[in-house]
Amino acid sequence: MKIAVVGAISYPGSELIRLLVGHPGGLHVEEVVSVSAPGTLISDSVPSLRGYCDLTLEPFDVDALAGRVDTVVLSVPHTVAQEYVPHLLEAGLRVVDFSADYRLHQADLYDEWYHESHKSPHLLERAVYGLPERYRNRIPDATLVANPGCYPTCAILGALPLIEHDMVEPNSLIVDAKSGISGASKKPSEKTHFVAREANVTAYNVGIHRHTPEIEQELSVVAASPVQVTFVPHLVPMSRGILSTIYASLRTRTTQQELIDVYQTRYKAETFVHVLGAEEFAETKAVLGSNNVHVSVHLDSRNDRVVVTCALDNLVKGAAGAAVQNLNLMAGLPEATGLRLPGLMV
Amino acid sequence: MKIAVVGAISYPGSELIRLLVGHPGGLHVEEVVSVSAPGTLISDSVPSLRGYCDLTLEPFDVDALAGRVDTVVLSVPHTVAQEYVPHLLEAGLRVVDFSADYRLHQADLYDEWYHESHKSPHLLERAVYGLPERYRNRIPDATLVANPGCYPTCAILGALPLIEHDMVEPNSLIVDAKSGISGASKKPSEKTHFVAREANVTAYNVGIHRHTPEIEQELSVVAASPVQVTFVPHLVPMSRGILSTIYASLRTRTTQQELIDVYQTRYKAETFVHVLGAEEFAETKAVLGSNNVHVSVHLDSRNDRVVVTCALDNLVKGAAGAAVQNLNLMAGLPEATGLRLPGLMV
Amino acid sequence: MKIAVVGAISYPGSELIRLLVGHPGGLHVEEVVSVSAPGTLISDSVPSLRGYCDLTLEPFDVDALAGRVDTVVLSVPHTVAQEYVPHLLEAGLRVVDFSADYRLHQADLYDEWYHESHKSPHLLERAVYGLPERYRNRIPDATLVANPGCYPTCAILGALPLIEHDMVEPNSLIVDAKSGISGASKKPSEKTHFVAREANVTAYNVGIHRHTPEIEQELSVVAASPVQVTFVPHLVPMSRGILSTIYASLRTRTTQQELIDVYQTRYKAETFVHVLGAEEFAETKAVLGSNNVHVSVHLDSRNDRVVVTCALDNLVKGAAGAAVQNLNLMAGLPEATGLRLPGLMV
Amino acid sequence: MKIAVVGAISYPGSELIRLLVGHPGGLHVEEVVSVSAPGTLISDSVPSLRGYCDLTLEPFDVDALAGRVDTVVLSVPHTVAQEYVPHLLEAGLRVVDFSADYRLHQADLYDEWYHESHKSPHLLERAVYGLPERYRNRIPDATLVANPGCYPTCAILGALPLIEHDMVEPNSLIVDAKSGISGASKKPSEKTHFVAREANVTAYNVGIHRHTPEIEQELSVVAASPVQVTFVPHLVPMSRGILSTIYASLRTRTTQQELIDVYQTRYKAETFVHVLGAEEFAETKAVLGSNNVHVSVHLDSRNDRVVVTCALDNLVKGAAGAAVQNLNLMAGLPEATGLRLPGLMV
Repeated sequence: MKIAVVGAISYPGSELIRLLVGHPGGLHVEEVVSVSAPGTLISDSVPSLRGYCDLTLEPFDVDALAGRVDTVVLSVPHTVAQEYVPHLLEAGLRVVDFSADYRLHQADLYDEWYHESHKSPHLLERAVYGLPERYRNRIPDATLVANPGCYPTCAILGALPLIEHDMVEPNSLIVDAKSGISGASKKPSEKTHFVAREANVTAYNVGIHRHTPEIEQELSVVAASPVQVTFVPHLVPMSRGILSTIYASLRTRTTQQELIDVYQTRYKAETFVHVLGAEEFAETKAVLGSNNVHVSVHLDSRNDRVVVTCALDNLVKGAAGAAVQNLNLMAGLPEATGLRLPGLMV
Repeated sequence: MKIAVVGAISYPGSELIRLLVGHPGGLHVEEVVSVSAPGTLISDSVPSLRGYCDLTLEPFDVDALAGRVDTVVLSVPHTVAQEYVPHLLEAGLRVVDFSADYRLHQADLYDEWYHESHKSPHLLERAVYGLPERYRNRIPDATLVANPGCYPTCAILGALPLIEHDMVEPNSLIVDAKSGISGASKKPSEKTHFVAREANVTAYNVGIHRHTPEIEQELSVVAASPVQVTFVPHLVPMSRGILSTIYASLRTRTTQQELIDVYQTRYKAETFVHVLGAEEFAETKAVLGSNNVHVSVHLDSRNDRVVVTCALDNLVKGAAGAAVQNLNLMAGLPEATGLRLPGLMV
Repeated sequence: MKIAVVGAISYPGSELIRLLVGHPGGLHVEEVVSVSAPGTLISDSVPSLRGYCDLTLEPFDVDALAGRVDTVVLSVPHTVAQEYVPHLLEAGLRVVDFSADYRLHQADLYDEWYHESHKSPHLLERAVYGLPERYRNRIPDATLVANPGCYPTCAILGALPLIEHDMVEPNSLIVDAKSGISGASKKPSEKTHFVAREANVTAYNVGIHRHTPEIEQELSVVAASPVQVTFVPHLVPMSRGILSTIYASLRTRTTQQELIDVYQTRYKAETFVHVLGAEEFAETKAVLGSNNVHVSVHLDSRNDRVVVTCALDNLVKGAAGAAVQNLNLMAGLPEATGLRLPGLMV
Repeated sequence: MKIAVVGAISYPGSELIRLLVGHPGGLHVEEVVSVSAPGTLISDSVPSLRGYCDLTLEPFDVDALAGRVDTVVLSVPHTVAQEYVPHLLEAGLRVVDFSADYRLHQADLYDEWYHESHKSPHLLERAVYGLPERYRNRIPDATLVANPGCYPTCAILGALPLIEHDMVEPNSLIVDAKSGISGASKKPSEKTHFVAREANVTAYNVGIHRHTPEIEQELSVVAASPVQVTFVPHLVPMSRGILSTIYASLRTRTTQQELIDVYQTRYKAETFVHVLGAEEFAETKAVLGSNNVHVSVHLDSRNDRVVVTCALDNLVKGAAGAAVQNLNLMAGLPEATGLRLPGLMV
């Protein structure tokens, strides 16, 4: 599979290139595109790639891409993806889109949360939500994969077994997410200045973050009825990683062991989702740099609540690693090819 | 007021000394006690004090203390405080205790959460809970002040207006707290190794943290009925600071502005509690090194919930700064003497 | 003394305001100027100041300043200071300038290192270099004080005793400085993005940093002969603090104790400079948030070299704290007024 | 190759296991040994390994090892390695030793710097210093490989071309190293507490660090004459990575381009050493988690000095990655097998 990465020096773009260096199944990055630094070496912008990927960044050109690759990964802002995708599909290219543009199935939901009209709503139906743990049967034949958001991946995988087993009140869900700063754009801003974030924790976009409807859509499909969540993201002083703490009220009494059993059964066959024991707590560093997800589930018996903590690396399982899963499936390869690696831990 | 600090090289102990250097109202540290390093200079253990406090650390000796000071601040582990306090009080000394030993009014509650029998339960009634924002009338005459826990201070001040106005379901409260690492002991452990905590976020003691009954006790007094909370502490990679995100279900519909008004009215007369606007979010760095508390309150109208974020410095307002407030009151000084300082921010 | 801070929301500007809140000698910030956010509250941009300094940011207007204050502190970029200062002096205002514009005595040296022509070279002679540890006799009557650079303060104080005693080869000096990120501008850039700096160490401007001639100028005055240094700054992942490691070849054999004696004698009368023992090492956190300087000096007897490490807070002793020293002197106050505070340490 | 890792839950030990997961050349970890936690799962101590290496930690037993593996990697403290190695070699096992015990060729040098007598000095001659960039011809047949120290690897690779070309005064070398905290032991201590290291920079062991003779030994071999260095290590607040800034006086005038040419020529054939351009600076994050080394070299023409900055990951190229290079060579595999991976960068 010949791949172009558009937005190659963005965080998720260059992370994808990192993960594909030496991919044992033949996923190969043929072309790297950047509208901001065309004509320069990608390794000038991303020095870690020196000696591993020294391609020249190209401008965005659909025809050129169509002549050189068969699959395009888009790591561009939402609304930009909406412009690019129709042309790429017309040119016969398959697309994995990192933006939010094709994740929601309903255009009016998009318009409501993103405060503008979707430019290619007819493609929403065609897009497959690229969460293999839910849709791995549909991804192999997809031409347009909407790669999930990092927060939604963490929230959905954390809550999934509870919803599947109808164990919690559907509107009691609260997702308190703590994210590293690479979840924000690489574009410098006051909010992402080192000094602003070091030794600092804050919430933002309380109750109005755009990943909310994505979480609700996917959990509602599972519940087969509307699920609504209070989602509050926070910034914590680290580069990578999300820990989501999920609170929900239990419908019926259960035990700590039963909760763990439900999770372990659900994720037994999943390569990347690991369920921890009753005395353990998911931590972001255990999955750093890897495609792994660690989930711990605890019973708060005093209050008939369940507390789930779910950790992943927002740039890997939350973006580029999920994309490799999707690309593997689209290429007819085993989903985990090139991804079975432990986190850094230290 | 002549003060001895017992446990002077603990984090809260040395922080108290930092805050009292040059105290304009005459609170003076006369003696510093450490059972772990007696005979050495405190500035050898805490080099920031060099040139500001170069006292020699003394062993713990009630008689010696009684001869030199009138007030003792205890920064020793719980259970140790229980041993020291009766002797100190007998010797006619006034005590501010940083430990949890005298915060709960009911001995059986202590025994249940701390898994051991309280050794001086008769003193529980005598102790005043040292949160001036609630008990400033009782502190001036107190002989034993139980300095509040850092998590409880943050949770109580964050939730107080909601409870006072009966605005939320009393059992819907969830407190998701993110703490810097100085909240743990200075004693080295695997969990507090730099490498274990840097770039890492994790929950711990989910639903069973010992600060839970303290939060519940104080909010129940306010509510005049039992309040129960799900309290989940987290460690985030910074040295100081707590951000508590508090979730609660509204009893009746309200507006964003009404919520802010309620908080601003409640805290208008408080020197150290600052209520932020609708577009602002409390951040720990804004109060770093200071006795200030920043509170922001947001309406999640989709889910009829309120989300409060409350930030403080666990070593100042969460420990040593609150102690200075209490000491000021005990000395007959204005409560804010020597404490009106902004946070570092950078 | 009525003070205006121009560039009030810059890091050094807002730090100065933090230090002057409650200044016991009557240094009072009357006006805050910002060309980037006039008309807004300073506490909107610097939330730590909420409740402590809620002045409205004003545009820069010399006449308005002249009517309201007697002293202006400029925290603006170099070249901008050159434009402002002549007007401010003409209007009868005294000026403390945080920029590099008036630190070098020779205009051609400025032109060489800053690659442009100095716009008011006639004022260079009038400017007093605001390092009280060297020039405290000249500062009280100064109308224009050039506040020293953070790197130069650290390097000069670290090397001073060696040069004064002619103990080292004047051209053997190497200054390897490690700085926190607040030394860079608050203006966002790729280089100061949290993700770019977290867990990262790098050198920059090797041998060509503009603080080099400032260090050389001041040490040459002391030596009464030209001193040349290799100065290499580094960025380390923290917000505040500089540690300079200074290497020099000894002219004659000496001992560890003699070295410490020389330093202790030189700095005995200095309030803010603390010389550590042979088994101690200066660390930035011990002076965090304070005006203190910690210096340790070690003999490398195998190589006949001396190794000095010198730590200070770049925003306090390296900028705003030094300015308070200067302002105190200019106001006829004891130099240390309002500054005798230990570092945070934790 | 069947490998046992002794000290498997130490930082370098578990890092080696991380690197060998899925090694494409058949290097396989058969047994994991830990004297501190025998009988437990390694993934209980190192949760990142969950699902990747769930072996049970074994006690240290030479016979058991001899029956199950052919090669042992020792990640144990110096002096302990001295005890283990003779037995392992006798049992016919090949050994890669992470400790300092067999790095110095002269026992008296060891005794001098380590303040105790070497227990198996007869093996010093047999040991091969495991720096493939210098000794790759001798490693394939080695039975005892002394894996280099992290600081020495960084200093040697940084200075090598200068020494090989006799470009600098041999006794002018100064190595100012900035290290992440994982260079210290995983064993908790006051010095490695998160709070002690966060936002802190300090030097330690100035001029007396035990890696000094190792650097000098290897550079002296290259120079064919004694080379002496001033080596000063520093701790900076990050988990991984070393940046060494190396200063040396040039013997003859040269140019920036010539310096870069010398380095590029020397390292052209090296897979893992990358020489940067004149406008670039080595940074630790670019090699994070990888076996790469980034070197930048700058001319300080004003002072006739050269300034080299050299960055590597202390746990990979400074320990476990170098071990994989060595193990590959010992197994007859291409040296880079399983190691050609870019750093995390973000």
